[in-house]
Amino acid sequence: MEAAFSLSCPIPISEYPVVLLAHGGGGKLSHALIEKMMVGVFSNPALETRHDGAVFTLGDPPSVRLAFTTDSYVVHPLFFPGGDIGSLAVHGTVNDLTMCGARPLYLSVGLIIEEGLPMDTLWRVVQSMQGAARQAGVHIVTGDTKVVERGKADGLFINTAGVGVIEHSFHIAPQSVQPGDVLLINGDLGRHGMAIMAVREGLEFESTIESDSAPLNGLVQQLIDSGIEIHCLRDLTRGGLASALNEIASVARASIAVEEAYIPVREDVRAACEILGFDPLYVANEGRFVAFVAAHDAERALAAMRAHPLGAGAARIGVVEADGRAGLVTMRSRIGATRIVDMLSGEQLPRIC
Amino acid sequence: MEAAFSLSCPIPISEYPVVLLAHGGGGKLSHALIEKMMVGVFSNPALETRHDGAVFTLGDPPSVRLAFTTDSYVVHPLFFPGGDIGSLAVHGTVNDLTMCGARPLYLSVGLIIEEGLPMDTLWRVVQSMQGAARQAGVHIVTGDTKVVERGKADGLFINTAGVGVIEHSFHIAPQSVQPGDVLLINGDLGRHGMAIMAVREGLEFESTIESDSAPLNGLVQQLIDSGIEIHCLRDLTRGGLASALNEIASVARASIAVEEAYIPVREDVRAACEILGFDPLYVANEGRFVAFVAAHDAERALAAMRAHPLGAGAARIGVVEADGRAGLVTMRSRIGATRIVDMLSGEQLPRIC
Repeated sequence: MEAAFSLSCPIPISEYPVVLLAHGGGGKLSHALIEKMMVGVFSNPALETRHDGAVFTLGDPPSVRLAFTTDSYVVHPLFFPGGDIGSLAVHGTVNDLTMCGARPLYLSVGLIIEEGLPMDTLWRVVQSMQGAARQAGVHIVTGDTKVVERGKADGLFINTAGVGVIEHSFHIAPQSVQPGDVLLINGDLGRHGMAIMAVREGLEFESTIESDSAPLNGLVQQLIDSGIEIHCLRDLTRGGLASALNEIASVARASIAVEEAYIPVREDVRAACEILGFDPLYVANEGRFVAFVAAHDAERALAAMRAHPLGAGAARIGVVEADGRAGLVTMRSRIGATRIVDMLSGEQLPRIC
Repeated sequence: MEAAFSLSCPIPISEYPVVLLAHGGGGKLSHALIEKMMVGVFSNPALETRHDGAVFTLGDPPSVRLAFTTDSYVVHPLFFPGGDIGSLAVHGTVNDLTMCGARPLYLSVGLIIEEGLPMDTLWRVVQSMQGAARQAGVHIVTGDTKVVERGKADGLFINTAGVGVIEHSFHIAPQSVQPGDVLLINGDLGRHGMAIMAVREGLEFESTIESDSAPLNGLVQQLIDSGIEIHCLRDLTRGGLASALNEIASVARASIAVEEAYIPVREDVRAACEILGFDPLYVANEGRFVAFVAAHDAERALAAMRAHPLGAGAARIGVVEADGRAGLVTMRSRIGATRIVDMLSGEQLPRIC
């Protein structure tokens, strides 16, 4: 323990003396904090996969392959069109397990409540969690409640952790991504982030933008059951599609090329993004994911996705290139120009999840 | 989902329109909130054990028995004599798994950081977590970092969840407690809560009171390896020994009798309790637990505990009575009078864990 304490801080303190909002925003600073501080200190094989969760095998002899993940939810406001912090906290962890290729089974819930939260608000959130858990077919089996003084939190924060089982032999992880893989997404981008921002900014459109927050386990289970050769899955949360692709490109040493024309974004979402100055590629979703599948299974996978209600708007958006630069994500625009899609710098959308 | 939303709030809103600090204090209001709202809504077999964590079996055929638990940590101040929020967050979850009779294996970490937290503070806490994990022989395998605006949290909150395996055939749970069982604790009470309070209140004693925060898995593993017939284990955190015994007495429909003279409390802790108006029975510990063991194994268990550094001060403090009132905890004082030890009303020590 003494040895660990003698290490110097891997984030340069002269440059970043305090934690900034951007350290939690899903962009470059978040990435640096996690990679340099957390992964560096907590180093172990299960953490090394840079996945949405850890995967390990238990039993003697080893017989059960498990995924384990956690996320905290600090979304503001607590209720928004299409969901609330409770349903979000269930969907988010169900989806992280799903992205590990696991069948989600059990969730834990840790509540941090600010003194003075209306009891009825807590009750609505707790019921929403249970409704979301029932819909996703998972059980909330253990929990914890803490209350802090007025002014020491912001209404309610929720942590969920989850356990799921991996019941197939695919190795679904960024490391499995290969040149030639086809990228599929299950629907239009940007709704979750824009639903939150529209409420916060008091924007009114002809129709309300509803969050896409949803449990993806049923849809992904269909892909797995169909025997689709899935190489990697990633949900498009903080930092959006752009950040997810950059992380995967970096870990897999792959070159990813997407086509702007194939990436579905609803008109009202595009309008909201323009008004607020956001790029839909970087906006968070809570019910959208990208699947890297073997080229020979791409059409079958797309059909399987479209057959599911949460994949009705599925699209083939790009490929992993054989001859590109490792770690690079590029996008060909509607007018044919190609640009680099970088990881987000700074904070785009605080507290959208 | 519609059906769930039509239920009325099980906590009377006319009486408790908002959440109070006492709803997280480990006493009667906490208990009511968890039992009526959480257990009521999230009802399922794994939750029904009223244990420190959930226990379930996985594999086809079922082959691996797992425990799964979570806790959030909001302790104030972040650093205190004998520990900090990081080591506490590891010990707490390691101990909850241990109390389920499990061997802790893997932890998740969810950080909620207030913008402006000194980077060096975060670094010290992260290193402390890793030091505590190494000492306990567990791995931190997955995590999440959120940052909220200044004034929307209080420096740093940490959630940990944990997974462990149960590798014996005992059913260690409140339901297994039987008349005749002997109660053992592994050392003196009240140090964690008083260490925190002494710092907060600026109390000075001849020697500093250090928290008892410690990982209990090694000590309990020795009891299990010795084949001691353990019926129930419970760590003495929020609400202290009194609350733990009341919860177990209630679930087990048991009558528990303890002897005040046998319950070890250090003199400086007793003095601090007197100055601040606390009863050591209700003060939180983070490295103390009570074991309910079969009478025929009591002496052997006590010897095994005392042979471990974290059990050097172990003591036999009471029994489960055959003819007492179900759900009742009583204490015989030093002068021979017997009184009821009730669950704590209201809030005693906010944010001690």
